[in-house]
Amino acid sequence: MALAVGMRVLTRSLLRPWVRGPGATPGRTGPVAGGGDCVRCFGSPRVLVEPDPAAGFAVMKMRNPPVNSLSLEFLTEMLISLEKLESDKAFHAIIITSDCPGIFSAGLDLKEMCGRDPTHYAEYWKAVQELWLRFYLSHLVVISAINGVSPAGGCLLALSSDYRVLADNPKYAIGLNETLLGIVAPFWFKDTLVNTVGHRVAERALQLGLLFPPAEALRVGMVDQVVPEDQVQSAARSVLAQWLAIPGHARQLTKTLMRKPTADRLLKERDADIQNFVRFISRDAIQKALRTYLEKLKQKKS
Amino acid sequence: MALAVGMRVLTRSLLRPWVRGPGATPGRTGPVAGGGDCVRCFGSPRVLVEPDPAAGFAVMKMRNPPVNSLSLEFLTEMLISLEKLESDKAFHAIIITSDCPGIFSAGLDLKEMCGRDPTHYAEYWKAVQELWLRFYLSHLVVISAINGVSPAGGCLLALSSDYRVLADNPKYAIGLNETLLGIVAPFWFKDTLVNTVGHRVAERALQLGLLFPPAEALRVGMVDQVVPEDQVQSAARSVLAQWLAIPGHARQLTKTLMRKPTADRLLKERDADIQNFVRFISRDAIQKALRTYLEKLKQKKS
Amino acid sequence: MALAVGMRVLTRSLLRPWVRGPGATPGRTGPVAGGGDCVRCFGSPRVLVEPDPAAGFAVMKMRNPPVNSLSLEFLTEMLISLEKLESDKAFHAIIITSDCPGIFSAGLDLKEMCGRDPTHYAEYWKAVQELWLRFYLSHLVVISAINGVSPAGGCLLALSSDYRVLADNPKYAIGLNETLLGIVAPFWFKDTLVNTVGHRVAERALQLGLLFPPAEALRVGMVDQVVPEDQVQSAARSVLAQWLAIPGHARQLTKTLMRKPTADRLLKERDADIQNFVRFISRDAIQKALRTYLEKLKQKKS
Repeated sequence: MALAVGMRVLTRSLLRPWVRGPGATPGRTGPVAGGGDCVRCFGSPRVLVEPDPAAGFAVMKMRNPPVNSLSLEFLTEMLISLEKLESDKAFHAIIITSDCPGIFSAGLDLKEMCGRDPTHYAEYWKAVQELWLRFYLSHLVVISAINGVSPAGGCLLALSSDYRVLADNPKYAIGLNETLLGIVAPFWFKDTLVNTVGHRVAERALQLGLLFPPAEALRVGMVDQVVPEDQVQSAARSVLAQWLAIPGHARQLTKTLMRKPTADRLLKERDADIQNFVRFISRDAIQKALRTYLEKLKQKKS
Repeated sequence: MALAVGMRVLTRSLLRPWVRGPGATPGRTGPVAGGGDCVRCFGSPRVLVEPDPAAGFAVMKMRNPPVNSLSLEFLTEMLISLEKLESDKAFHAIIITSDCPGIFSAGLDLKEMCGRDPTHYAEYWKAVQELWLRFYLSHLVVISAINGVSPAGGCLLALSSDYRVLADNPKYAIGLNETLLGIVAPFWFKDTLVNTVGHRVAERALQLGLLFPPAEALRVGMVDQVVPEDQVQSAARSVLAQWLAIPGHARQLTKTLMRKPTADRLLKERDADIQNFVRFISRDAIQKALRTYLEKLKQKKS
Repeated sequence: MALAVGMRVLTRSLLRPWVRGPGATPGRTGPVAGGGDCVRCFGSPRVLVEPDPAAGFAVMKMRNPPVNSLSLEFLTEMLISLEKLESDKAFHAIIITSDCPGIFSAGLDLKEMCGRDPTHYAEYWKAVQELWLRFYLSHLVVISAINGVSPAGGCLLALSSDYRVLADNPKYAIGLNETLLGIVAPFWFKDTLVNTVGHRVAERALQLGLLFPPAEALRVGMVDQVVPEDQVQSAARSVLAQWLAIPGHARQLTKTLMRKPTADRLLKERDADIQNFVRFISRDAIQKALRTYLEKLKQKKS
């Protein structure tokens, strides 16, 4: 718990108010949910929150270009936005979606894991744990409007939601593909996947690092709904109405009933999990592999 | 265990022999399974048992009109009938079905939870626990012939069976819809559902209080078979034959192997579960909600 | 652990080198995977290993005619072959298949359980445990090319693989049908099945002793792929390529992550499980049933 508290203090100190008026980034965001004019939009450099308090929900748009990598700063800003919405009684739900074309989130930011010191790795991993714990157990209804590819940590974020709508684009595969990079998903990534698709599908998917295209993702239960790409946001809103019709307190307690045992497994050994991560990521072989991979990425871009 | 024993003594003291000859309620019950003439029928005011000892099974018909609400007396009579059949070596299986048109069972009786004292609530909850424990672990094969809508506690009863046949009538939805009433399913309701449909389907169904119509219930595995309404009883009998062909002792031990760990979770904290229930149900807000709901039901009827 | 070590010493002492040149059993084995000429084939009397070190895998052919019963000697030879391949860095995968027409494996050898002394029963059961533990947790990729019927222990062997390809022949049913023989699957057979097909399918399949024909086996997830009978071996090889493309170390750790908790349940109470088996199998009623069954089998053959 000490860790969690430390994390929150950290996130608060990083908070940068972010007010955006309509038209600030023309062509980037459409009209706000519920017909608002975005005057009430808030957020941080990397997370745009479009609130619709009258309708009881907000859209949380991830915009950490080019691929919504979950850097420490980005994770922190997402947690701040979530906390802000959770503490405002007007909000009962959020829709998470991406502002980066073609990608929901590429997952963990390898730059946070390469060439830094153990203290940084520990801090980073604590933030990744916190993201999962807070979204997985949030008393808000969390709907993922998955409008792009969603590998590894991006998939974990989607799996932490209550419902997943995926755009029907064959490029938008989703899955925990860690083994392809030579790394192993942490046990709580695995638990979350098993809870979603069952033991056997998870076992094969994790070993092979499978990324499921939309039809397949729907078939195995990785997502709940696949819709044409231009209907992802509206489908998420439709589904939200069904969730918001349920008495909130009973729904929240039911969510806790289902998910707390899984979260408790991490909470019980959170420090050990951080130490494991730091030890693993500090290995010469891993550091070398990450450097090579990041070099390749850089060359690909230029 | 003390609780369980106390419960059994209670149920025995409430036993009212019930002999019914053929034609006693004309047009209500057809010919008995196996061609008997119902001379051997027994039961209690609310549970009609039509035994077919030659075939090794009995049909247990619930008739607590209008909706087979699981009142304390009704629960008690069901437990007595089950115990009677379990202790008679002629019987290896039962079929549970409803004698109330259009409804299998409406579930827990809200009248038992409203305007009574804590001792009554505790006694009632003990009986609900007992119903689940005894049916879920019965050494008899239990087949549910679901010939009507089956929400909440009615669904739990069906889930406690070994096999579920549902009549193909769009009105006969089945599910644990507790959240719709603002309440939360106990953890052992949840465990039973997860065992039946898996974690993800259970998570969504419980949060949204979903009632599944027949086709959907079959698809997610909430029931095992959907048949035309006039074939529910015969389909249940056909399936029974398959179960009765299995060596009884091995089948019973296998059932225990599968279900004991789930039952043990309740057995380990049975008293705490009762106390939780009493505390929850005694709240002013809950009592008020129940009174309002019961008032509405009464007005609807008149 | 003492048991496991003892077992390995035993298996080593039983090792009989087995060199087989091409044409040794004409018409029995086709060309070796990868186009080898079988000069490198090795194995033991009952397990023919066709290695293809260049491709990184070996085919393990079971040939304990007539039905690949898992006798103590056969189990021992399978474990030796597995150990040999595991300790050779050239091998990353195996394909298990049968050399006995129409049968993958009939499962445990009832002759090992009948008319022997408790020490023998204990030794036999230890070997059965060891087979499961070693195949279920092997760092090699294990693909089952199921080219025949696969009941009980034969099904367990298949379930211990990472992937199952079944020949599309309606006679080649697969399942844990122990109850049909009046016996109960051990808890770790059950756990393995639950991990593969989920709790509800496992519950019904184990109680009824269901043997699933190919289409049904695929539908419930008992196997991963059903192909025409003459394509079983080639399909297994195709699938293998997908598994071998994954970084080995990450894949192995992921397999451990998924399977260790299940294996640990047996490892924690291995001795108790052996004692349970010995006690059960030593009963007069069981011994009598086994004798009768074995007599019937003998008469059927002659």
